Amino acid sequence: MAPRIHPLISLSETETNRARDIVRKAHLGSVLHFRVTFLQEPPKSELSKFLALEHSGRLHEVKPDKWPRRLARVHYDQLSPGSKVPKSVEVLVDLDAGCIASTEDIRVGAQPAHELQDVGAICEVSKLFKDRVAKFNLPEDFELVAEPWPYGGLDPADERDRRFMQALIFAVSTKSKNPDSNFYTYPMPIIPVVDSVTRQVIRIHELSTGGDGDPYTLPDGHFAEHKLHYQQPSEYVPELLSTSHRTDLKELNVVQPDGASFTVKDESLVEWQKWRMRVTFNPREGAVVHDAHFDGRSVLYRLSFSDMTVPYADPRPPFHRKQAFDFGDGALGDACNNLQLGCDCLGVIKYFDGVLVGADGTAKRSPNVICLHEQDNGINWKHTNWRTGRAVVTRRRELVLQFIITLANYEYIFNYIFDQAGGITVQARATGIVSSVAIDEGKKASWGNIVSPGVLAQNHQHIFCVRIDPAIDGHNNTVVQQESLPLDFDEHTNPMGNAYRVAEIPITTAGGYDANVATGRIFKVQNLDKLNPVSGKPVGYKIIPPTTQLLLAHPKSIQARRALFAQKNLWVTSYRDNELYAGGRYTLQSVDEVDGVADAAARRDDVRQKDIVVWSVFGLTHNPRVEDWPVMPVEIMQLHINPYDFFTSNPAIDVPPSKNAASRNFGSGDKNGSCCKAQEGEIQNASPHARL
Amino acid sequence: MAPRIHPLISLSETETNRARDIVRKAHLGSVLHFRVTFLQEPPKSELSKFLALEHSGRLHEVKPDKWPRRLARVHYDQLSPGSKVPKSVEVLVDLDAGCIASTEDIRVGAQPAHELQDVGAICEVSKLFKDRVAKFNLPEDFELVAEPWPYGGLDPADERDRRFMQALIFAVSTKSKNPDSNFYTYPMPIIPVVDSVTRQVIRIHELSTGGDGDPYTLPDGHFAEHKLHYQQPSEYVPELLSTSHRTDLKELNVVQPDGASFTVKDESLVEWQKWRMRVTFNPREGAVVHDAHFDGRSVLYRLSFSDMTVPYADPRPPFHRKQAFDFGDGALGDACNNLQLGCDCLGVIKYFDGVLVGADGTAKRSPNVICLHEQDNGINWKHTNWRTGRAVVTRRRELVLQFIITLANYEYIFNYIFDQAGGITVQARATGIVSSVAIDEGKKASWGNIVSPGVLAQNHQHIFCVRIDPAIDGHNNTVVQQESLPLDFDEHTNPMGNAYRVAEIPITTAGGYDANVATGRIFKVQNLDKLNPVSGKPVGYKIIPPTTQLLLAHPKSIQARRALFAQKNLWVTSYRDNELYAGGRYTLQSVDEVDGVADAAARRDDVRQKDIVVWSVFGLTHNPRVEDWPVMPVEIMQLHINPYDFFTSNPAIDVPPSKNAASRNFGSGDKNGSCCKAQEGEIQNASPHARL
Repeated sequence: MAPRIHPLISLSETETNRARDIVRKAHLGSVLHFRVTFLQEPPKSELSKFLALEHSGRLHEVKPDKWPRRLARVHYDQLSPGSKVPKSVEVLVDLDAGCIASTEDIRVGAQPAHELQDVGAICEVSKLFKDRVAKFNLPEDFELVAEPWPYGGLDPADERDRRFMQALIFAVSTKSKNPDSNFYTYPMPIIPVVDSVTRQVIRIHELSTGGDGDPYTLPDGHFAEHKLHYQQPSEYVPELLSTSHRTDLKELNVVQPDGASFTVKDESLVEWQKWRMRVTFNPREGAVVHDAHFDGRSVLYRLSFSDMTVPYADPRPPFHRKQAFDFGDGALGDACNNLQLGCDCLGVIKYFDGVLVGADGTAKRSPNVICLHEQDNGINWKHTNWRTGRAVVTRRRELVLQFIITLANYEYIFNYIFDQAGGITVQARATGIVSSVAIDEGKKASWGNIVSPGVLAQNHQHIFCVRIDPAIDGHNNTVVQQESLPLDFDEHTNPMGNAYRVAEIPITTAGGYDANVATGRIFKVQNLDKLNPVSGKPVGYKIIPPTTQLLLAHPKSIQARRALFAQKNLWVTSYRDNELYAGGRYTLQSVDEVDGVADAAARRDDVRQKDIVVWSVFGLTHNPRVEDWPVMPVEIMQLHINPYDFFTSNPAIDVPPSKNAASRNFGSGDKNGSCCKAQEGEIQNASPHARL
Repeated sequence: MAPRIHPLISLSETETNRARDIVRKAHLGSVLHFRVTFLQEPPKSELSKFLALEHSGRLHEVKPDKWPRRLARVHYDQLSPGSKVPKSVEVLVDLDAGCIASTEDIRVGAQPAHELQDVGAICEVSKLFKDRVAKFNLPEDFELVAEPWPYGGLDPADERDRRFMQALIFAVSTKSKNPDSNFYTYPMPIIPVVDSVTRQVIRIHELSTGGDGDPYTLPDGHFAEHKLHYQQPSEYVPELLSTSHRTDLKELNVVQPDGASFTVKDESLVEWQKWRMRVTFNPREGAVVHDAHFDGRSVLYRLSFSDMTVPYADPRPPFHRKQAFDFGDGALGDACNNLQLGCDCLGVIKYFDGVLVGADGTAKRSPNVICLHEQDNGINWKHTNWRTGRAVVTRRRELVLQFIITLANYEYIFNYIFDQAGGITVQARATGIVSSVAIDEGKKASWGNIVSPGVLAQNHQHIFCVRIDPAIDGHNNTVVQQESLPLDFDEHTNPMGNAYRVAEIPITTAGGYDANVATGRIFKVQNLDKLNPVSGKPVGYKIIPPTTQLLLAHPKSIQARRALFAQKNLWVTSYRDNELYAGGRYTLQSVDEVDGVADAAARRDDVRQKDIVVWSVFGLTHNPRVEDWPVMPVEIMQLHINPYDFFTSNPAIDVPPSKNAASRNFGSGDKNGSCCKAQEGEIQNASPHARL
């Protein structure tokens, strides 16, 4: 028997191709179009036993045939002989047994990912589209480009089983003959809708280019006009920039003369500064962290970006259909950037590849979809004894696991950041080019901001959901809401009025919960069966829910119905295998959030000392600034997951204080570069005063 | 005439000593005790004219005798012949004219800083104290140490004109013979109160060491007992640590082969990446930023940490008197750490000295009280053209101005961070040792957490106030509250329910305002007289008020009365010279906040297009974790001040994309170290699809 593969390691190219072969064999005669193939993680009941044996060094006791089976989840379209409409199929393939283990029940109307690239090709050959474009009377030196978008927010008249896509249309200036000239600065006022099965443009929306006070739609038979005569170039690639680059930025290098402090085994097991975790990649969630331990103790079973939604708030139809679910809509794997050395982080960098599939199901390696590196983030802890002048200061080193996605105009940077004190920061950075539409000269619109002449950037939100599957010293955990509440004066209990009360309420039932700034609300995930020997309180971690605005769309709007997850700051649910996606398994063309976190919460399960999942929701209401154009500076959002009476002291107290010998005084003429070994920190001027 | 000094440059040692001489000469025969001496900044009406000339390159037009006068603000105690009680005096000394220009009116009861160090000495010789200590029957190998604290929250019976201090008493283990052994782990249950004028211990509070359900005070005649028999060592200095240091942290150096990207002139004028500002130091606010311009345009007139308060919530008297105002209580200058190369930041570092005074008024140079350096903070902006695969990515370089204070057990790290896109982040990091009191074995207390056997860390808050004196393209500015609000369905204005409304309300009257997460409330500081040529909206910066809990103490408690500033997230006031301190000019022994931001707001001045000041309040409700012991990992709080339609595009669009040549692949064997010149970023795999 072949050497066994750790059950969390992502599918290899060989395994992916084996899954392809098994699926093909089962559908001889049909035309298959593969969407995604990735590892089906073993059931938790099975995997957690395996991991326990692994952590206790007893894996050798597991007989080869008792290892968790390697399963592939494969999603594909099947066009049976004689049929014109493909059927969407999702199966689990048993790679060990060489057969399809089960066929998943896909609900009616659930849509697989569609061919984004096809949208342009379909427009290109469409007479409807070509006739409409001719009416624009495009100036010389301009061509058109179609930017495929998911068709969010079906209208009641839309047949749910059809596969729709929409395209935002832009003009490209051909003057520069540079294929990276920024076309988003020339939005065109039409949106074609295509049927990706029949490969036809089925209608073209004429967009209003008016502002406040203007009608939302054009009268029937009217055609919107382009604004190219006053829209302006807005370049970002260096060779096209209208201003020259600033020249006074000197080089800053991160140099690690002895290499990185982390180790990586099996291309998945990462160990660093008492942390130990498995890192995997899949085309639905990007980078995923599994089985995270600190100092030999279990903290998390699984940590992932579960979902996100980006609803646009322009009230004019069909802009309600601009609502992306960048994880759930199905193209995340292809959207992951192939990172390059020295571009997306500094220092010593480990890159992880991902395995995607082509339409024929064949594995294709996507290089460098995740990067791993260390960074310095200022002071970790410091204390100066003012009596002796002795300062002890340590620096805060962090381990960063990063992946970046590009979705048409926009970029998201996702970071899982681990620190030396047992803390985790989950960070999302938004950058890229804000979505733009055309607006008449001299007008303003309250649903957006003019970021360049004739270019309106529409108001929108980005709402993320991070799925935290905790394992605080075991799988039975409880979420406890902690609040700090004011108290009335009371002769006996608050005689001076300075006291406040810390109220702790365990969450007993699955549901959605709100943040509350006024009460300083935090959520602890505790293991009530294990007490901290110092404080006597249950061991735990705290989740500080980022206090950001939730979804603004009307609760009865299709935008809100599709994204129930985005309407609470924190969800607590009981664990079920495969319940991974807050917005539901299939978000493309969804009308309601189905099988998402709201459905899981609606079971109202008992969540006291159970195997639970915590979902943290946060985001950004993005009313664009002119400064966001043409490429926006990062907006940074962060979620903190920190120990709270989990350890018996500061877990970073053993970080050696050091005096960095590579640092240099400004203007000393002594340029830095070489490195010496660490020595202890500063001694300050001693105070003359000592003890009694 | 001597060459003129820029009117914002802090007083030199020579000027400080000249101020001393002028004051002494005016008080021949009196005994003087100097507290602080620092630059009195010129009135804004005068300084802003001067700065306008400076920015237009016309300073040579200003005749030497028309330069703003150099004034020193000097605060001292005067003991007149025959008097036993010193009088507190604050004067402005005209250094040019060589005379006292004015004597400030100090309100009754306002207290100067007291001698912190004296508290220990007073206890040491006090019979009352020695008799009490004898009752402890201290074990061998323990000595006592007195930790001076301000006497916050006077009781009604306390005479306001007396100068009180209190001391927290700790035992020091002498076993290790190490003067840096952590004594905070042995809190003793007494608090002596001293009169620092009569130099007597006037009473000793016996502290309850009980927990929930126990009486808050000891019966008369009872003496609290120490807990040294079960309190434990909690060391942090390397040589005393019970565990050895982790050994797997490899060196990480920041190397700037061509030096720093900033320049510093006159030890105060800093220029970096289109930013230009004056940096000064004074013993009341630490580092202050003045006259900040970006790309030649005025953004801020002045930026400072104005105040902070740290109220403790242990309901048992006299703990209501644990309430520090670390800026206002008067010892900030001496609390500033003397930073050392390689300890508090990495890379090429510029240090600034400060000038303090001794009791005799003589200048003493405090080296390295501020440091200035650059840091890399990940990606700045990125966009990948998915059609061509071309990625353009720039890194986010930041300029960090840092100072650190130590107040007895605790440390605060303050950072002003400037970025390349015109943004400012004001950051406070809390670290150091949490304040501790003794608790009986086996008990718990709801007002704190047990962080080590017999050691209770009391719940408390840290509330900061940052004073922002904006100058958005001039001094007449308006604060506009912006909210994003849900909308009902409406056939005409919100037919699909996806729209939300951005409501903007100018603040017309000075006052205190709240943050509101639910409405996504932000505050723009706009110049209504100047429109952004692209968006047509007034130019401005936005302040995102950190949504943190405000002061919890009962509004009628002395803690709350002393800190009105801590009860609103944002204050807007009209500008007045010398109105700098949110908690009032003298916080030591204050009973109410006097002449603080609440009083300024109470003028209810018109603040539409006026010279205004914005005060941002944020903080941390700190219910200690076991992990905060013995030295806590930093807690990071941040305030963001970002352009909002101030510029005509992303001001960082001209940051050159680069591929860092010093970065290395993990495990490549090619250790990094040397540096090459920047080159452009990555090219990703090109998509096969191109234009229509």
